[in-house]
Order: sequence, then structure tokens, then C-alpha cells
Amino acid sequence: MTDKAFQDYYPEELSHCYGCGRHNTHGLQLKSYWDGEETVALFQPEAKHTAVPGFVYGGLIASLIDCHSTGTAAAAAYRAQGRAMDTMPAIRFVTASLHVDYLAPTPIAAQLEVRGVVVEVTPKKVIIESTIMADGKICAKGKVVAVHLPESMLKVMKGEK
Amino acid sequence: MTDKAFQDYYPEELSHCYGCGRHNTHGLQLKSYWDGEETVALFQPEAKHTAVPGFVYGGLIASLIDCHSTGTAAAAAYRAQGRAMDTMPAIRFVTASLHVDYLAPTPIAAQLEVRGVVVEVTPKKVIIESTIMADGKICAKGKVVAVHLPESMLKVMKGEK
Repeated sequence: MTDKAFQDYYPEELSHCYGCGRHNTHGLQLKSYWDGEETVALFQPEAKHTAVPGFVYGGLIASLIDCHSTGTAAAAAYRAQGRAMDTMPAIRFVTASLHVDYLAPTPIAAQLEVRGVVVEVTPKKVIIESTIMADGKICAKGKVVAVHLPESMLKVMKGEK
Repeated sequence: MTDKAFQDYYPEELSHCYGCGRHNTHGLQLKSYWDGEETVALFQPEAKHTAVPGFVYGGLIASLIDCHSTGTAAAAAYRAQGRAMDTMPAIRFVTASLHVDYLAPTPIAAQLEVRGVVVEVTPKKVIIESTIMADGKICAKGKVVAVHLPESMLKVMKGEK
């Protein structure tokens, strides 16, 4: 695995996401890495992340797949351009669509392993397929279509709109 | 709109969900109601629910659609059986699959309106289509296939497995 997480390369002003922003002290602070051609993130749920006692709620699973996939999309786009992740201009993706199949109840006590596979990289979008495993069993499968952060969001952030 | 939320009818031991459990003090405590043939829930995001500054992170949108849909599924199943939601046996759904299309960035300052439409009710599953609106604009569309809470989860909860 690489040393530094994808999310640790995000620009300062784009690092407040509840799912994966290093500056969101209330958030999940997910960290994703290359592991060969795949990407991986580990996450330990907390008691509050309950669906029914003993199991993780579906929104957490969706969040992990979402943020791991947009992180993977950024990393894949840098790779496709032959650039390191600390080079400018910064690449940051958001989610156009998210699909999750919940295959088995996800135990809350286990550390979760999120694995991503890059299915497609084009100049406009990246498609990622992910799995979430707990105790060696696949609990959920996800598919995300990620697109570049739109200019309209940057303008609002900069107070231009 | 009905007086009491669907989630307020959930049995005590099934009311700890981070997204919609009334006993989860850290959670979102989403409340869903009938509004004629549709269902509705209102939610005010907090600052911590940021994606990039000014906008809601995708995982929150997914969570709201997820919990509103499983709540709607339970309410629809009671209706299909001609039963009030305070009658036994209790009906509680979980998510088999979740799909979200993020159509526009969702502003974090606005109150969000989640609307659900019951597409299909069978003895085994309920299909719900939902939208999330902010400032009068649809920001996301979702589709959930909800199934009855499996026996295996109840057994773990009861310490039988």
C-alpha cells in the first residue's frame, strides 16, 4: 500500500467532507490507498453507527463506498495523466450516481475493508466498483460514477455566486 | 400529514438506527409521514454534514433516502394489510439495494424535503422511489428495494447466534 492516503492530497479547502475530509473533526475521516491495481480503505464502525443492534446502518456503508470511490477516481485520474497526486492542478471528484447492493448484514464489531476497482476512466468521468468485507465475507457491493467537481460548486465556495 | 412518524412506531429494540432511530442520540432521527399517497420527511443538515463548503455530502443524501424508504416500506406494508402501524406483529424493513442519482449540488443551509412514492408492494419486498428537494429544486433521486428484516439479524440481536 502507498504511504499517504488519497484524501491527504486533497487541497485544504476541499478537505471538509464528513466522509473523508481530514479537517472534519466530526466525520469518518476515511483514508484510501493504492494496493496494486486496486484501492483499499479500512474503517472501524462505532456503536453509534447501528442499524439494528449488532449491525451497521446502510447509510454508513453507502458513505464509505461513496468517499472511497471518489478518492479512487481522483487517484485514477492522476495515474491516467501520469501525474503524482501532489501536482497541480488538483483533481477532485464528486458523485454523479451511487448504487449499493446490500448482500449480507454488516457486523458492527468488525473492521470493514473497502476495496475499489477502476472500471473506466474518461476525461469526464471515472467508474468505480467497490466491495465491503467484514470477517472475510462480502457484505455489500457498490458502483459509483464520479465526475469532476463542477465549477458552480467552486464559485459558491469562493463566494462568487 | 399524519401525526406520528413511521419511525415512532418501530419496536423499542429496533429503534437504534443512526439514520432514523429515536433512541440514537448521536443520529439523524429522521421522521417520515404519509402525505396522501406519498410520504414526506424534512431534514435540516448541520455544518458537519459538509461535502465541500456550502454543500451536503453524498452519504447524508444516501442515508436520508435509505431511512425514508425503509420507513415508507413499513408503512406501505401495513397499509397493504389493512393494519394500523401500532398493531402486532411489527413490520420492519431493511435495504436490499439503494440507487441514488445526484442531480445537482445540495445546499447545506436549506431544509431538505424527502418525498417517497411506493412503486411496488409484494409479500417479500417494497420498492420506493424518492426525491430530495432543496429551495424548490430536486437535488437527488433515489430508488430503494426494501425487504423484511431477516430472521438472522433478529437472532443475533437476541443473542441466539
